Amino acid sequence: MTDLASLVRFVLVRTSHPGNIGSSARAMRTMGFGRMALVAPHRFPHADALALAAGADDVLAQAGVHDGLVDGLAGCSLALGLSARRRGVDLEELSPREAAARVLAAAGRGEQVALVFGNERTGLENEELARCHAMVRIPSVDDFSSLNLSQAVQVMAYELRVALLGGTVPAAPVRDDAEPPADAARMERFYEHLSETLDDIDFHKGRAPTTIMLRLRKLFQRAQMDERELRILHGIFADAQRMARIAQDKDKQ
Amino acid sequence: MTDLASLVRFVLVRTSHPGNIGSSARAMRTMGFGRMALVAPHRFPHADALALAAGADDVLAQAGVHDGLVDGLAGCSLALGLSARRRGVDLEELSPREAAARVLAAAGRGEQVALVFGNERTGLENEELARCHAMVRIPSVDDFSSLNLSQAVQVMAYELRVALLGGTVPAAPVRDDAEPPADAARMERFYEHLSETLDDIDFHKGRAPTTIMLRLRKLFQRAQMDERELRILHGIFADAQRMARIAQDKDKQ
Repeated sequence: MTDLASLVRFVLVRTSHPGNIGSSARAMRTMGFGRMALVAPHRFPHADALALAAGADDVLAQAGVHDGLVDGLAGCSLALGLSARRRGVDLEELSPREAAARVLAAAGRGEQVALVFGNERTGLENEELARCHAMVRIPSVDDFSSLNLSQAVQVMAYELRVALLGGTVPAAPVRDDAEPPADAARMERFYEHLSETLDDIDFHKGRAPTTIMLRLRKLFQRAQMDERELRILHGIFADAQRMARIAQDKDKQ
Repeated sequence: MTDLASLVRFVLVRTSHPGNIGSSARAMRTMGFGRMALVAPHRFPHADALALAAGADDVLAQAGVHDGLVDGLAGCSLALGLSARRRGVDLEELSPREAAARVLAAAGRGEQVALVFGNERTGLENEELARCHAMVRIPSVDDFSSLNLSQAVQVMAYELRVALLGGTVPAAPVRDDAEPPADAARMERFYEHLSETLDDIDFHKGRAPTTIMLRLRKLFQRAQMDERELRILHGIFADAQRMARIAQDKDKQ
């Protein structure tokens, strides 16, 4: 596994069939990738996974198993979610090739990156896609759009391999300054603080907090914030909370 | 299936596992290809093939079954053999992408074209490769070079699909819902409201407001917000201002 490849994580979410975990490990391994994270797999470890890995046992042995996607994305500054959906997802849509270029650009800056694959039947839920920065759509035909899970893994691993071999890692200094991008755990703390603040300033007033929070998540995921930006926003929230506390303490007097 | 796609034949030679025939049919079908030829399959038809086709039954039903490769290639003017071998083959070697371009060029001239895939364990024999015009090597890593048969089919079908689509995924609306993106004038009002709010909640505390506002501008410009998102954020600012006003009014009392 090259250094760049070791920064790329294949995250399989709520996989039903352990055989697909094995096939995915094999698909990754043929293309030089070895970092797999499993989020709430239905059955793992399992003999079918080992059988279909066809020798990529090391990938399975080193796979992290996590309860939730946030843990599965720990340390990653960029998460791309595979989805066949065309509607109802408010995320930038990338082709596998565009995604490969973006992944390698981030890895080239030393960042950890995740490719996120949903359940075989249901794909990624909206809440899972909301933790991604963009979605990747493999250009399947409309009337038969669903690739087998490990086939989707193979296509992405293949495009990444071609991009790596092409050495055409686009030097993409999207961001001019040197602050590191915020990882998934920090983003979760940010959303918690935002949610608390909205409660404190009495923003919800009977409206559904989940819908609003989902919309705000999409907005801020899209922005791919760095740590300095997070600090500024945390500071703003803290001041808004301070004002709300003063206002409410006074009310009680 | 487009006209060009109908000229492309996937030829599976001496396939051992009927499940792989099914997975290959599914892989082809997702990318818009439907013409399969089976040369001396070990077991076919078979329940495993149907099960793993996952609905691509039409591909299996129409698959031609042949005793030998020569029959399987009948009518084809170009045959490209997939192989992981590096030596001992006296054939031009193409990448999957180069192969896709060549296949579509031939199909564009109205010629029938075959992609030939060997047995799962042994690949294509020399005599079989000798019936091909060039070999295609999927760029797997040296120490784990063998893709599952249907994964190899998927990679080739994917590259053909991308080439057919012109190398670009069909223009997809980045944002699915009908909210228009915010225009520059609205964004200015947004920044004014944000700036007022920061004053009201006493955020600046002697720090330079211009630097902070510049950073926040960069963040929110990057996010390319739509009008609904702007409304949510204006609502949040208004509530924060309301709290600040109560807090300050009370201070004056």
